[in-house]
Amino acid sequence: MKTARASLTHEAANQLRIRRLGIDTYQEAVLYMHKDCPVCKSEGFEAQSRIEMILGERRVIATLNVVSSSLLLAIDEVGLSETAWRALGGCEGDTVLLQHPDPVRSFSAVRAKIYGGKLSEQDATEIISDIVQGKYSDIHLAAFVSACADDRLDLQETIALTRAMLNAGSRLQWGKSPVVDKHCVGGLPGNRTTPIVVAIAAACGLTIPKTSSRAITSPAGTADAMETMAPIDLELAQIRRVVAQEGGCIAWGGAVSLSPADDLLIRVERPLDLDSNGQLVASVISKKVAAGSTHALIDIPVGPTAKVRSQEAAAALSATLVAVGKALGIEVRTLITDGSQPVGRGIGPALEARDVLAVLQNQEGAPGDLRQRALLLSGHLLEMGGKAATGAGLSLAENTLASGAAWRKFQAICAAQGGMRTPPVAEHTAEILAQHSGIVVEVDNRRLARIAKLAGAPKASAAGLTFHVPLGTVVEAGQALFTIHAESPGELAYARQYAEGQSEVVSIKEKA
Amino acid sequence: MKTARASLTHEAANQLRIRRLGIDTYQEAVLYMHKDCPVCKSEGFEAQSRIEMILGERRVIATLNVVSSSLLLAIDEVGLSETAWRALGGCEGDTVLLQHPDPVRSFSAVRAKIYGGKLSEQDATEIISDIVQGKYSDIHLAAFVSACADDRLDLQETIALTRAMLNAGSRLQWGKSPVVDKHCVGGLPGNRTTPIVVAIAAACGLTIPKTSSRAITSPAGTADAMETMAPIDLELAQIRRVVAQEGGCIAWGGAVSLSPADDLLIRVERPLDLDSNGQLVASVISKKVAAGSTHALIDIPVGPTAKVRSQEAAAALSATLVAVGKALGIEVRTLITDGSQPVGRGIGPALEARDVLAVLQNQEGAPGDLRQRALLLSGHLLEMGGKAATGAGLSLAENTLASGAAWRKFQAICAAQGGMRTPPVAEHTAEILAQHSGIVVEVDNRRLARIAKLAGAPKASAAGLTFHVPLGTVVEAGQALFTIHAESPGELAYARQYAEGQSEVVSIKEKA
Repeated sequence: MKTARASLTHEAANQLRIRRLGIDTYQEAVLYMHKDCPVCKSEGFEAQSRIEMILGERRVIATLNVVSSSLLLAIDEVGLSETAWRALGGCEGDTVLLQHPDPVRSFSAVRAKIYGGKLSEQDATEIISDIVQGKYSDIHLAAFVSACADDRLDLQETIALTRAMLNAGSRLQWGKSPVVDKHCVGGLPGNRTTPIVVAIAAACGLTIPKTSSRAITSPAGTADAMETMAPIDLELAQIRRVVAQEGGCIAWGGAVSLSPADDLLIRVERPLDLDSNGQLVASVISKKVAAGSTHALIDIPVGPTAKVRSQEAAAALSATLVAVGKALGIEVRTLITDGSQPVGRGIGPALEARDVLAVLQNQEGAPGDLRQRALLLSGHLLEMGGKAATGAGLSLAENTLASGAAWRKFQAICAAQGGMRTPPVAEHTAEILAQHSGIVVEVDNRRLARIAKLAGAPKASAAGLTFHVPLGTVVEAGQALFTIHAESPGELAYARQYAEGQSEVVSIKEKA
Repeated sequence: MKTARASLTHEAANQLRIRRLGIDTYQEAVLYMHKDCPVCKSEGFEAQSRIEMILGERRVIATLNVVSSSLLLAIDEVGLSETAWRALGGCEGDTVLLQHPDPVRSFSAVRAKIYGGKLSEQDATEIISDIVQGKYSDIHLAAFVSACADDRLDLQETIALTRAMLNAGSRLQWGKSPVVDKHCVGGLPGNRTTPIVVAIAAACGLTIPKTSSRAITSPAGTADAMETMAPIDLELAQIRRVVAQEGGCIAWGGAVSLSPADDLLIRVERPLDLDSNGQLVASVISKKVAAGSTHALIDIPVGPTAKVRSQEAAAALSATLVAVGKALGIEVRTLITDGSQPVGRGIGPALEARDVLAVLQNQEGAPGDLRQRALLLSGHLLEMGGKAATGAGLSLAENTLASGAAWRKFQAICAAQGGMRTPPVAEHTAEILAQHSGIVVEVDNRRLARIAKLAGAPKASAAGLTFHVPLGTVVEAGQALFTIHAESPGELAYARQYAEGQSEVVSIKEKA
């Protein structure tokens, strides 16, 4: 179509000086314009409009908040939130061009998916590319996450999403094989086996460049716990150096942009507390492939209040993980484990780190369940990686741990990552007591996790809880069931109030 | 459970002075705190935290943005966005108590729904109640809307949602029967029959207190178009007076809080451009019942690019509307109409209003299709309301329009609503021309609507487009297919650029 009569001279007028307002809007880029700003008026921009800012080669799309006070902004200025400021990369007073962004075409595919359609390879690629470029607002992201929740993505869609996420980030290559990895699909508080498994595997000569994520909906991710013991925010060159030197590392995946889309999706997944099997598989497999792994072992804990609740669901998830792995050229094995109660004692970054250290140091009181799980996983990994014959992995792992070799390797890895740290201790604690005597017959992982989060975990790294009464424990009335740890009195009160209102976090059956 | 050792004295410290920052964040309440604010630190609040503010009897939940500049806020102040400021109702310098809000329990039901569960009556009631109380952030709303999209809500859930929405708002009673209403499910640009139907029905003595909505995803709602001809922002007492005097009104539903939940959901539905049959039915029926109607006639346009795309979908929607109406005690009839192209010529608030006026004034060039549709609907309504025998409604409607009685009634209604206005004219226009000769064989309603929106409709009330070539029109190359109207050069350029990139908005088949 052709057009007649239209002005093209408006662009020159759409220039404003940028100003850093110092407002942290989390990851969504926000820009602020005065209500009487001529650009605002001439372009018909209004609160919540999406606006594209252009400065040299950089283009940033942000959401508009309109300001009525001249104290905040002059009418020829555009204010930027911290995220917008960092993305644009300008200097105070630089002039930017403002315009309506092109409609986000990939969102049509999200809409079609919500209406019951399927995501094609191209849809997935475009969606992930637009997300990484910041073209999706928070509510667009929330709709996408909802559309993919639960088992809404089939195998083909999951493979497409995995490829798209892989292609959107950087990729490590190690020039050798095997390169092994392990992962837990989560949902089981305190299941912090990774640092132990990496130490054992690396001590046995495997290459295991582990990149971990921060918590999404749980009180602590491996990255959060590890960060209380050593720096995890390593650049690619540092990871290469640590792995070349020690055979393994435990770094934060986000710092090397292995899956930038995943990190952006987390900002809505966390407050929504939504899980998606397809996104979970795409996230796990894309990161493993991006990290350059050839073999990955995946722990799937199953229990009534774990992330995966039934053997059937675990089997389905396992099949998808293996199939998507195969499609992406990586060998995946899964281990379906008991998820009926927390592992170890601590729940929360520092508290879990303390359990890890106790196991690695062969302390007498170290949590036996955490030790056993870590050894089981290590055994399988040693077999997958060719360091032990089938059936001989577990005893090799046991020897490596008992001899102190794993502990020495862990210390060496921490040192190589920038120096070992001591996990912090929370200042404020409160014990939650049994109201009657009996035997512990059920533990609600989800509510325990919720309490640890209300106490401040994972952001407050010393926060969380210590769990004292595993299934089968005989307790007396008034005995402490768990202790809440918090860094602030407000968070302690908040977590305690919630815990008080929940009578079935720990179910105690009275003795006959 | 009982607890030991915990401080309860933190509340006294959690007080800050409020300050109106004059930032318009649309409907989401946002609060701003300095990063060094002691409350922020002691409570563990961080960017994106949801925080409850308490001032006297008022409690407002808002999303936190953290400010690092002392120019914006002192460390003992909390800044409020315009929405938060209005909701809290305080004065500059008042002291508010800040605390962690209770977890939004109803969101568990949304999550369960996303995971494939069903919404119970209680779930729907709690969700809608929490939404109306502002407890849902934008991303929570986006997840709820996505969970209900398309046909995800079954009949029982739709009835539950309708009841919940009805109970969350105020309700009109007229002390008489019948009280009639009409509604169009939308999706057909320019289908602005309501003002004409109300005028004819009221002129024939029916009681028709029409409350209309603003556009959700379309370039104009009835309220937007009517607002260019008369005030629509009427309080309940004004609506009563207008209806007592004239038999009918055309007011904005949001002004009388008939469905406050609906108005809040629109803030995410609009940017997401998502439709939900269940939410559509709940919205329509709850508003009809809330408006005190006993009978409602609902127009369902069907076409390949209308909101409803097939006769089957229309039949299903019709059945749900009738069944939900019955459950809520209102008689609903539906009319499935042609939705293959726009109705009338104008698309956009003022442009549609001009078509309405042309029909009411019996102008020679008035759009015949709009006139016919309005008469058809009026005829059915007159029969439903007992003003005409079955089969005699249409001719009564025709007489009422042709005689000028409808036009006189419309003028009287506008005067009673606060005075008749002349719809504004846009300053900037551009014609989109045919690239070759032929016959118009298909019109893409959705892209026409999109172009009208890009031109600024419905917010810029004079913006939109006039459509010149209905199906079957013989056009020559270079002839104008439609004219874009905009209030600003930027919006004109934006709409024009989009229109240029779309070759199939109007499909022209070359003559053999």
